[in-house]
Amino acid sequence: MAEPMSIEEMRRALETLPMWELEEAGTAIRRDLKFASFAKAFAFMSEIAITADKMDHHPEWSNVYNRVSVRLTTHDAGGLTRKDIALAQAIDGAAA
Amino acid sequence: MAEPMSIEEMRRALETLPMWELEEAGTAIRRDLKFASFAKAFAFMSEIAITADKMDHHPEWSNVYNRVSVRLTTHDAGGLTRKDIALAQAIDGAAA
Repeated sequence: MAEPMSIEEMRRALETLPMWELEEAGTAIRRDLKFASFAKAFAFMSEIAITADKMDHHPEWSNVYNRVSVRLTTHDAGGLTRKDIALAQAIDGAAA
Repeated sequence: MAEPMSIEEMRRALETLPMWELEEAGTAIRRDLKFASFAKAFAFMSEIAITADKMDHHPEWSNVYNRVSVRLTTHDAGGLTRKDIALAQAIDGAAA
């Protein structure tokens, strides 16, 4: 079971993820993304779906037309773990 | 621009969609689906994404692991139209 990150480790990790917002409770991060079309938004989701399933760590996400909202947390750990940071980095890479 | 359906037409259409719930305002329908795995849930979403983009009518949907929640409405028309019914039928077909 993944352990939650320490405050200091989380602070350092979040500095590398400026597009992400930490939820008030400190246990999840969110990013909203906008694409040129629904097809582009869903292509992004497809890429991340494959990455996420490989990592065995899945986003909570929603899609409305060309917008995708992603929330990352690790339920088992009751907070953020390195898995969330790794998935956030993959998402930033795919969206770049 | 698609016109909203009449109450009678909507009533008849919804009778054919027993898995869907009409929102209180009467302007959108929802269905929650559960799959055997994330991969199965996302395979379903991929099928519907292609159908939806072909219909030029897109769902509002969210996914958490093996669950998918879908909301259908026609923003242009301010309510339900035949497009929503057609997409709901496609979703029922893909989920069957």
